[in-house]
Amino acid sequence: MSDDKVMVIFQPSGRRGEVPKGSNIIEASRLLGVDIEALCGEKKVCGKCVVRIEEGHFEKYNIQSSMDNVSSWKEEEAKFINEERKKKGFRLGCVAKINGDILVFVPEESRAGKQIVSKAARDIHIDHNPAVKVYTVQLQGPTFENKIGDFERLCNGLEREYGLTDLTIDILTLRQLPMALREENWLVTVSVWNDTEIVRVRPGRIEASYGIAIDVGTTTCAGYLCNLQTMEVIGTASLMNPQCKYGEDVMARITFSMTTPDGLQRMSDDIIEGLNDLIGKSIADTHPPKKKKKKKKGEKGPDVYEEVPEEGKTYLRLAKEDIEDITIGFNTAMNHILLGLNPEYVGLAPFPPVIHHSIDIRARDLKLDINPSSYVFVLPNEAGFVGGDNVGVLLAEEPYKHDETQLIIDIGTNGELILGNRHKLVSSSCATGPAMEGAQLSFGMRAAPGAIERIEIDPETHDVDYKVIGREATRKFSKPEEMKAKGICGSGILDVLAELYSSGVITKTGVFNKKALKGHPRYRKNADTGQPEFILAFKEESSIDKDIVITQKDIRQIQLAKGALYAGCKLMMKRMGVEKVDKVKIAGAFGTHVDRTKALVMGLFPDCKIENIFGVGNAAGDGCRAALLNVQKRVEANWCSRNVEYLELTVEPTFEQDFMEAMQLPHMVDKFPNLEGVVPDYVLNQGPKGPIRPDKK
Amino acid sequence: MSDDKVMVIFQPSGRRGEVPKGSNIIEASRLLGVDIEALCGEKKVCGKCVVRIEEGHFEKYNIQSSMDNVSSWKEEEAKFINEERKKKGFRLGCVAKINGDILVFVPEESRAGKQIVSKAARDIHIDHNPAVKVYTVQLQGPTFENKIGDFERLCNGLEREYGLTDLTIDILTLRQLPMALREENWLVTVSVWNDTEIVRVRPGRIEASYGIAIDVGTTTCAGYLCNLQTMEVIGTASLMNPQCKYGEDVMARITFSMTTPDGLQRMSDDIIEGLNDLIGKSIADTHPPKKKKKKKKGEKGPDVYEEVPEEGKTYLRLAKEDIEDITIGFNTAMNHILLGLNPEYVGLAPFPPVIHHSIDIRARDLKLDINPSSYVFVLPNEAGFVGGDNVGVLLAEEPYKHDETQLIIDIGTNGELILGNRHKLVSSSCATGPAMEGAQLSFGMRAAPGAIERIEIDPETHDVDYKVIGREATRKFSKPEEMKAKGICGSGILDVLAELYSSGVITKTGVFNKKALKGHPRYRKNADTGQPEFILAFKEESSIDKDIVITQKDIRQIQLAKGALYAGCKLMMKRMGVEKVDKVKIAGAFGTHVDRTKALVMGLFPDCKIENIFGVGNAAGDGCRAALLNVQKRVEANWCSRNVEYLELTVEPTFEQDFMEAMQLPHMVDKFPNLEGVVPDYVLNQGPKGPIRPDKK
Repeated sequence: MSDDKVMVIFQPSGRRGEVPKGSNIIEASRLLGVDIEALCGEKKVCGKCVVRIEEGHFEKYNIQSSMDNVSSWKEEEAKFINEERKKKGFRLGCVAKINGDILVFVPEESRAGKQIVSKAARDIHIDHNPAVKVYTVQLQGPTFENKIGDFERLCNGLEREYGLTDLTIDILTLRQLPMALREENWLVTVSVWNDTEIVRVRPGRIEASYGIAIDVGTTTCAGYLCNLQTMEVIGTASLMNPQCKYGEDVMARITFSMTTPDGLQRMSDDIIEGLNDLIGKSIADTHPPKKKKKKKKGEKGPDVYEEVPEEGKTYLRLAKEDIEDITIGFNTAMNHILLGLNPEYVGLAPFPPVIHHSIDIRARDLKLDINPSSYVFVLPNEAGFVGGDNVGVLLAEEPYKHDETQLIIDIGTNGELILGNRHKLVSSSCATGPAMEGAQLSFGMRAAPGAIERIEIDPETHDVDYKVIGREATRKFSKPEEMKAKGICGSGILDVLAELYSSGVITKTGVFNKKALKGHPRYRKNADTGQPEFILAFKEESSIDKDIVITQKDIRQIQLAKGALYAGCKLMMKRMGVEKVDKVKIAGAFGTHVDRTKALVMGLFPDCKIENIFGVGNAAGDGCRAALLNVQKRVEANWCSRNVEYLELTVEPTFEQDFMEAMQLPHMVDKFPNLEGVVPDYVLNQGPKGPIRPDKK
Repeated sequence: MSDDKVMVIFQPSGRRGEVPKGSNIIEASRLLGVDIEALCGEKKVCGKCVVRIEEGHFEKYNIQSSMDNVSSWKEEEAKFINEERKKKGFRLGCVAKINGDILVFVPEESRAGKQIVSKAARDIHIDHNPAVKVYTVQLQGPTFENKIGDFERLCNGLEREYGLTDLTIDILTLRQLPMALREENWLVTVSVWNDTEIVRVRPGRIEASYGIAIDVGTTTCAGYLCNLQTMEVIGTASLMNPQCKYGEDVMARITFSMTTPDGLQRMSDDIIEGLNDLIGKSIADTHPPKKKKKKKKGEKGPDVYEEVPEEGKTYLRLAKEDIEDITIGFNTAMNHILLGLNPEYVGLAPFPPVIHHSIDIRARDLKLDINPSSYVFVLPNEAGFVGGDNVGVLLAEEPYKHDETQLIIDIGTNGELILGNRHKLVSSSCATGPAMEGAQLSFGMRAAPGAIERIEIDPETHDVDYKVIGREATRKFSKPEEMKAKGICGSGILDVLAELYSSGVITKTGVFNKKALKGHPRYRKNADTGQPEFILAFKEESSIDKDIVITQKDIRQIQLAKGALYAGCKLMMKRMGVEKVDKVKIAGAFGTHVDRTKALVMGLFPDCKIENIFGVGNAAGDGCRAALLNVQKRVEANWCSRNVEYLELTVEPTFEQDFMEAMQLPHMVDKFPNLEGVVPDYVLNQGPKGPIRPDKK
């Protein structure tokens, strides 16, 4: 490492890299593509950018992180960080300058909305009634007068103290029982699953138990480690779905399983291994960091590491057997792959899954590395293309408990739709995902530094301003070489389309407006393909030494995606027999970033009051968490999966027609009264032949 | 092999050896220690000795067995063997002479009571209600109108046709489901466990399903392969308990598990491996034998074997996954060892087991090699020393359903006692076994050819006549060198003691009657130990080139065993508050062989009408079979285990005194009116100082 560079690692994202010595932490975060809230623009007045410098040796990265490696404490920080937190290493990111290697933890409250893998748990209401409950009981040891067996002795105690009857016990737990009972003189704590089976026994009195709710997306998996007693989310871990290597979408993976010997087994093993990594990661976070012990002069031998617990901090130090319950939600194909169920028929009309119902599977039967007697609760599948993740969304949002009609759109790699109220629930799915997430486009990319995430096109000059991940300032306020643009990520896609329309670059049918663009420096035909394209970022603004463009084909891809979504919504409304929706909820990372007005203009969904459009984050994950903490939600999950009417869009007679229409600007066909007065008239009043250019101001 | 000898193998015992060419099958069976019923003494008139000559190559023994290798069919055989059976190879053992290598199958009905490992299934009444039931259902495939999942489709069909509701399915079975449903056009047969869980699914209509009841004795394990639908016992297999190498009795094994690292694991693995062998053996018996294919002249390469099905015989050809249910009964220590439960406390006062209740364990969790979704039903334990085998005895004999008071004695390696009637059940156990089974004696041996199994001592001359296993004629009717005696087996022990008493060789306290024996050629002091001993078989009658003797110490061992049994019975009667027992049942191989009168004279148990003393064979195994074929018996088993009062003999205040008295002739202390007129008066009227010699006839 050169002398003028230092290594910085950001947690929990895991992003790392070298930055110039003397940079402040906010600057470093931008360089490395980590989003930290910084409302005041580094004026040191908002106090939003609080971060924690971790102390200790981090083996994985081979760095020694220390508070001494940042500039000294400044007066202005005291306004936002008290003495106690100061001792723990908290600093303002815009103040602390980096002089040596550090590991920076970005607390939840300081993470900007655009966290790269953003599957944080939301604060939803959940009743406390976990499937796994702990009971402590003091027993009397055996005598000749009472020489009943250990298990029966325990059961008698549990019935006497807690009214539990007819309990069974897993054989692995039974094997622990005689020693556990005698270790603390017949005082034991047992974990009971569903009030029916003892799945763990520990000597003494123990209050806490833990579980993980896992949301397995097509692309990303997120795990929420929860205290089952306090319902607290103790940690969040995420990872890329290891199945991405078998194909970006579920159909590709189904094909892989059908065409490759042992394909299903391999994919299943991979995802299980991934989930074990996820579990391991969340457990590791409950232990203190480790530091390399200094060697005496001349001392040889391997390096020795010792834990460096943060002063005053209590570490849970969880072991894998401390995880006593898991809930998992995923789409039907992923469900089948993880469970080793042949997904072939899920991919063939009429797409019947192998099973709808939730399943309780012994963790060891899935080789999941937790308390081996515990069960995994797999959320039920709705239909071939709508699985437990959608049930999770239902559990979190509970549209069936409300009179108002809610439309819930979960845009991950697949697009899943729910429409419903107290009286009826309809679900559907459409292949919107890849395009909406940036895949399949010429310059599509994952949300990562350099990705264009916001764009504006001047309706008159057709000049472009944009913002990339990892840099606060937009192009307008930057030198070209500072932008380092690489491509367009999911959250930028809709912006691009909306702006192309609104500014008159393309017509309502999605075709470039040749007349208006004639001679424009951003408009050209591709030299190789002959296809028209529009330049969003010029070569000199890019880090890949290319113009970043959007092609006619790209626009078609996006139109197809949003057209399918819109047509799906309309068909569902028809099936429900409703004329309008009262609320629109957009789940997934997409929902967190999307501009509600632009989404409505582009016709991602039918008309709705702008203030009634909400991003609901990782609702699928929230639903898994609800099922983890409240066993009643598991019953509800099965009720949902059987009472939601699944609409197979492709077999609906009007779908093709609706779809074609929706690829255009839908407000040219449908009524969007809620847009009136919200967007410029010229956006709403485009003629059939092309956009009307706004009057010059 | 010399020209005048042929190889004969008997099945199912597996005994084999060379016999002189031209011997008949009965003669061969005696030479090899196989007991075939031959009531008429080879006069060819009783027809009891029907056997079957197997055709084919038997790889294991490297013989080619054929009906042509025995003498031709004789007129007199037709009286007992019809045309059909004749074709299948059935012959009369006393008629068919052996001219070449053969494998002889001895059908159940032709096996004499003294079958070497005699754990044959008895014909007890069992109601048909197996835990695993099969249901066939024709479903309709999915359509867009009915695209419900495979599992739900199946459940709907099962509910419609059979009223089954709320079914679950094991994940391994679920993995088979989509293919199984589609293979025979949606006609499937499912196996349902306890009307709650689907544990197997097979394409098409299948009527049969199979299970195994296993009785794990301390020394021997027996398995009964049953058709769960017809309740037929299809095969019986047995093997030595592989744990014998860790110690002959349970205490030795408990000690091994406590003192050896991984001792419990090793023993558990061994018994599981043994049970898998047992299962494999019973399955192998349902396939036809194999024959080596003849090579063409000059043909090279490895030997090829082909199946040689017997003409007209249908082979079930079961695979391991065809076994869909298992019940296992064993004593508490063996139960713990097999299940991997720490047996330490079972061996420590007050001897609490880890669990009393029966357990249903997934076969794969115990690594038992059957249908992996199936469950193993482990019979409940009564107490530390009385386990599921004793519950098995209760299930088979059902004393709790009768007014009369029954005493049931199960003499295996441990002695287990049951006393009870409709109103009360008491059980107990005592360490009788080893001596009663021939262990611990100078010339004790297992039941095998050469073992003395019957003995008579002349009260006047004190000369000895005896019979050995493997030879019909007794010493009196044989040349000395024909006897080939080797030792005394379990069934001979009691005879020896009874005859020593009755003939006045020993006094009522078990001491040799020196005065009466003075100068007798069979009485001497051992040259090495100085201990008095009595010769049962002289060196020239033995195959081990030694006199076979019974020593003073041997007699003490037997007295200790029978004294413990008798004292136990009396204490149980006291606890029950009964003065007499109405029936005595002796379970185990011992019970099949014992002379009822001698057992009563010797005071193995309190007075009872001789005609009310029964041998009940392997009642423990019968009970396991009852639990296999009638799920209601499993409920009954748990009821039994909790409602039988276990009497810990060693802590009873009068036990020591009762025990000391019972070591002597108990009828000198107790009343035995049922013996009057049955045995000579001099046996009942021995004076306190020694036996009264009978008057000369």
